[in-house]
Amino acid sequence: MTDTLNQRVLLASRPSGLPTPENFRIAHEPLPVPGEGQLLLQILYLSLDPYMRGRMDDAKSYAKPVDIGGVMEGGTVARVIASRHPDYAVGDLVLSHSGWQSHALSDGDNLRKLDPQAAPLSTALGVLGMPGFTAWAGLLQIGRPAPGQTVVVAAASGAVGSAVGQIARIKGARAVGIAGGADKCAYVREELGFDAVIDHRAPDFAARLAEACPDGVDVYFENVGGKVWDAVFPLLNDFARVPVCGLISQYNALPQAEPGPDRLALVMRDVLKKSLTVRGFIQREFLALRPAFLEEAGQWVREGRLRYREDIVEGLENAPAAFIDLLQGRNFGKLVVKLAD
Amino acid sequence: MTDTLNQRVLLASRPSGLPTPENFRIAHEPLPVPGEGQLLLQILYLSLDPYMRGRMDDAKSYAKPVDIGGVMEGGTVARVIASRHPDYAVGDLVLSHSGWQSHALSDGDNLRKLDPQAAPLSTALGVLGMPGFTAWAGLLQIGRPAPGQTVVVAAASGAVGSAVGQIARIKGARAVGIAGGADKCAYVREELGFDAVIDHRAPDFAARLAEACPDGVDVYFENVGGKVWDAVFPLLNDFARVPVCGLISQYNALPQAEPGPDRLALVMRDVLKKSLTVRGFIQREFLALRPAFLEEAGQWVREGRLRYREDIVEGLENAPAAFIDLLQGRNFGKLVVKLAD
Repeated sequence: MTDTLNQRVLLASRPSGLPTPENFRIAHEPLPVPGEGQLLLQILYLSLDPYMRGRMDDAKSYAKPVDIGGVMEGGTVARVIASRHPDYAVGDLVLSHSGWQSHALSDGDNLRKLDPQAAPLSTALGVLGMPGFTAWAGLLQIGRPAPGQTVVVAAASGAVGSAVGQIARIKGARAVGIAGGADKCAYVREELGFDAVIDHRAPDFAARLAEACPDGVDVYFENVGGKVWDAVFPLLNDFARVPVCGLISQYNALPQAEPGPDRLALVMRDVLKKSLTVRGFIQREFLALRPAFLEEAGQWVREGRLRYREDIVEGLENAPAAFIDLLQGRNFGKLVVKLAD
Repeated sequence: MTDTLNQRVLLASRPSGLPTPENFRIAHEPLPVPGEGQLLLQILYLSLDPYMRGRMDDAKSYAKPVDIGGVMEGGTVARVIASRHPDYAVGDLVLSHSGWQSHALSDGDNLRKLDPQAAPLSTALGVLGMPGFTAWAGLLQIGRPAPGQTVVVAAASGAVGSAVGQIARIKGARAVGIAGGADKCAYVREELGFDAVIDHRAPDFAARLAEACPDGVDVYFENVGGKVWDAVFPLLNDFARVPVCGLISQYNALPQAEPGPDRLALVMRDVLKKSLTVRGFIQREFLALRPAFLEEAGQWVREGRLRYREDIVEGLENAPAAFIDLLQGRNFGKLVVKLAD
C-alpha cells in the first residue's frame, strides 16, 4: 500500500460556459494516514451528476463552490481499507461523499454502510441513491400526482427522469417522457414502459408533446429548462405542480432575452390564472424520508418495477471528459465512474 | 316599487390596456319578478377589486370572462326585498355575488346571511370578506411565516395587503409593507403597525427595501408584480414562499422584454438554488376554511387587532371611474360602492 498514491481530480479553473478538459487537473499525492477515530476509504465508484456544474462556479448557491485547486465534489461508493474507528472494519462497504479521488480519509460521519447482497453497489449512486431519491421525493412530496393524472419529465432516460416516470406509473399516473434521439426514446418507451415519449430533437417537438398530453399536464418534473419548459408550460392544467430539481440547459450559459413580451410576466400570469405551483428543491431537505424511500424503492427494484440503466466509465482520469459529455446529454443512463473492483 | 328600475353597469367593449369609461355602459331595466323559490335582492354595497380587470378580457382564465353586454361581475351586500324562498324573509341581509347592479334575482344558492350587529355590513366585502380571506388563506396556507420571519407585501394600505401584514404580525412574524405615497405609508406604519413601510415611489426604493429586510425575506405575498417583484426577489431567503394572488402592474399591459439575460431564466435559477416556492392561488380553493377564517378574523376585528380602512364611493354610476382609479392605485383602503342604505 505504500506504493499507492491518491489520484485526485482538482478544479484547475472556473469554466465560462461548457467546461473544457483544461478546467480540470489530475494530481497525485501520498495516501493519507488515518488518525485515531478515522478511516481510510478506497473509492470504487464515483457518481457524475449535472449539479456538479454549479459547484464549479463561484456563485451564491445552497452549496458552497469547489475552491480552485480543490477536489471536485461527488458521491462515492467506497471500501474501508484501514480503520481506527470503532464502528467500521476493513472491508466494510460504504456510501460516502468523497469526491473525485481514488482514496479519502473519513471520520465516519455521513457514511452509510452498504450491503452488496441487497443490490449492486453502484445503485447506491443511482436508482437507490441521490438521483432516485430526488425523483421519489420531488415527485411524491411536491408533484403529488393523483391516479390518472399526467406527469411529464425530460431527460427521461437519465438517472432522475427514468425514475420519475416509472414511479409515476407505479402510483397510477400517466408518464410522458422527453428524450434526445431514437435509441433513448425506444429505451424509455419499451424498457421503462412510459406511456409516451417524445424526441426533443423532432422539428415538431412541441406539437407532438401536446398530442401526447390530450388531458394537459398535471405535474412537470423540471430538470432541464429551456425549450422543453417552453413546450410544456402552455399544457399545464389548473393547479399543476412543477418541482424544479435542475435546469441543465442553462447551467453553461444563461439565455438572453428575445424581443417580445417578457417571458417572466407571461409565466407569472399563468401561475396566477392557473393556480400553479413552481417549487425548487434539493433532495437533502427530505432527508428524514430517506429510510422510507430505500424501503419502497428497494422493493420496486427487486420486483423489477423500477428499472435503471448505468453508463459506466472506467478510470478516474476519464471523469472530466465523461462529465463534459453528460452536460451535453451524451450519456445514456446513470453516469458512474468505476475506479476499482 | 313598480317605479323602480334595475340600474346595471354592462361591459360595453373590451379594454386594451387601462379601461376607459367607454368600456362600460349604464342600462336600466324593469325590476325582475321572483318566481317560486326565488328572491329579489336590493344591492346595498358593491365591492370593486383588481381581479375584475381580468374578467374584462376574453382570455383563458380560471373564471370565464364577462360577455360583451353582460353585467360586470362582483361581490355585493344586499337586502331581501321580496322572497318566494322558504329560507329567506324580506329584510334579511345577505352576502351575494350579484355584480354591478342595483337589484338582482337569486335562487338562494351561494348566499350567506349577514348579522349587522356582528360587524359593519361592508366588512363582508373587505376585511371579513374575499380580500381578508385571500390574505388569511394565502399567508397562512401558502406563506406559512414562522415567528420572527420576514413577510413583505405590496399595496400594503389596500384590502388584501393591509390584512396580510397585520395577520403576519399577529402570528409573530415581521411585516414590511410597500405603499405609494406618504399618506399611505404613514397609515401602514402608524395605524396598521407594520414593522416597516417603504414608498415604492422613492428613487432608492430597492435599496430601502433591502435595508428594511436585514434578515432577508421569507414570505413575499405577491399582488403587484413588476418593479416590486424585481426589488423583492433578490432578497428572498432559502425556502422562501411566494403566494401569488395578483399582478396588478401587468393587468393592463404585459411588459416587453429588455435586452440582457432572460428574466425567467434568472428567476428559475434562484427558484432552484434557493428552493423557492412560487404558488398562484385564488381564495376559492380554500373555501372549506372560510368558517375558521370568519371566526378567527372576526375576533381580531372585534379586538381591534385587525384594522381596516374603507374607501366608499356613493352611487353605482360612479363605479367605472372608481374602478379605473383603483387600477392606478388611486384608492386608499378597501374600495366599496354604496348603492343604498
